[in-house]
Amino acid sequence: MMTRLQVQQFQEFCFNQLKEVGIVLTSDEKDKIEVADFGLNQFETTGLGLFVYVNTPRVCAKELVMLPNQTCPEHRHPKIDEFNPGKEETFRCRSGKVYLYVPGKRTNFPCALPPEDRKQYYSVWHQIELNPGDQYTIMPNTLHWFQAGPEGAVVTEFSTTSLDQFDIFTDPDIARFTTIID
Amino acid sequence: MMTRLQVQQFQEFCFNQLKEVGIVLTSDEKDKIEVADFGLNQFETTGLGLFVYVNTPRVCAKELVMLPNQTCPEHRHPKIDEFNPGKEETFRCRSGKVYLYVPGKRTNFPCALPPEDRKQYYSVWHQIELNPGDQYTIMPNTLHWFQAGPEGAVVTEFSTTSLDQFDIFTDPDIARFTTIID
Repeated sequence: MMTRLQVQQFQEFCFNQLKEVGIVLTSDEKDKIEVADFGLNQFETTGLGLFVYVNTPRVCAKELVMLPNQTCPEHRHPKIDEFNPGKEETFRCRSGKVYLYVPGKRTNFPCALPPEDRKQYYSVWHQIELNPGDQYTIMPNTLHWFQAGPEGAVVTEFSTTSLDQFDIFTDPDIARFTTIID
Repeated sequence: MMTRLQVQQFQEFCFNQLKEVGIVLTSDEKDKIEVADFGLNQFETTGLGLFVYVNTPRVCAKELVMLPNQTCPEHRHPKIDEFNPGKEETFRCRSGKVYLYVPGKRTNFPCALPPEDRKQYYSVWHQIELNPGDQYTIMPNTLHWFQAGPEGAVVTEFSTTSLDQFDIFTDPDIARFTTIID
C-alpha cells in the first residue's frame, strides 16, 4: 500500500522525468499517472510508474518510469479468449538503461538482481540490455521481468490492449493494483 | 518520385528533428526512415517522413515528421477482412503543431489549407488542433488528413497493424509508395 502523498510525489517525479527526456504530458495527465507497488510494500525496490496514452480494445501505449534499480516483477500475459491470444508488447528504452529478462539461455553474470527476499519468484534469466534507442518485443504468455539500471529508466511500451487484471505473476504475494491509503 | 539524395537528406532531417525532441534513433534506424511523397512530386507540400518502431500483425507504432505546413493527404483505412475491421490509430503531438481534419461539423475558419491544385480531393473539414501533449484517436475507415503548423511537427502514431497498401486516398493521383530514382 502507499499513502496518497507518496503516490502524488511519485507522479510528480514521473512527470518531471518524462519532461526531462522531452515527453510532454498535460497537467491533467499528471494526475493519471499510475503508481504500481505490486502490493509488496517495497515500492523503491519493486514498483514503477505508468502513464497510459491509450488503451482501446485493440491498441495500448504507455510510458514506464523507473527509479534506479527498481524492478517490475516476473509475469506473463496469458491468452484471454479465442480472439485475444494475450498481450503482445514492445519495450523501447528512451533514457537510462533497462535489463530485461526472458526465457532462453541463462546469462552467466546477469547485471540485475531481483530483490533478495523475493528471488525465488524469478525464473527466467536470459538478459536483454536496452539502452536508449533499443527495443524488444515480448510475445503473449512469455514470462518476463525487468530492472532499471543505476540511473533509472524511461521505457515506452507499444502493445495490444492491456487487461492488467489477467496478468499472471510468478510471486503469489503480488497484487497488480496498488492500495492507496489516505 | 524523389532522388536517392533527396531521400537521404530528408532522412537526415527527420533523424535530427527527432533527436531535438529527445527521441533517440540508432544510426541503423536512420536509413529505415520512410520518405513518402505520395507520388505527387510536390514533397514539400504533400509528404512526410515516417519511422516505424514496430509493425506486427497486431500492433504498430511510428513517428511522423513533417515540414512546416506539409500535408498528409486525405485517406481512410478500410476493413481488411472479418478479423481486421481496418486500422485504428491514435496521433499524439510531440512537438510543433498539427491540424487534423475528420468528419463532423465543418470548422468555419480552418487553419490549414490543402495544396491549391489538389483541394477538390479534401472533403472532411472538422478541425482538431493538436499541440504537444494532445492526442486524438481515429477509428477504422474514417476519412482524415492533417497538416503541420508553421514550425513543422513531430507526431507519434499508436495503432493496430499498418497495411499501407490497402489505404484509400481521396485523390486518385496519389500513390502511397514513393518511387526513388538514382
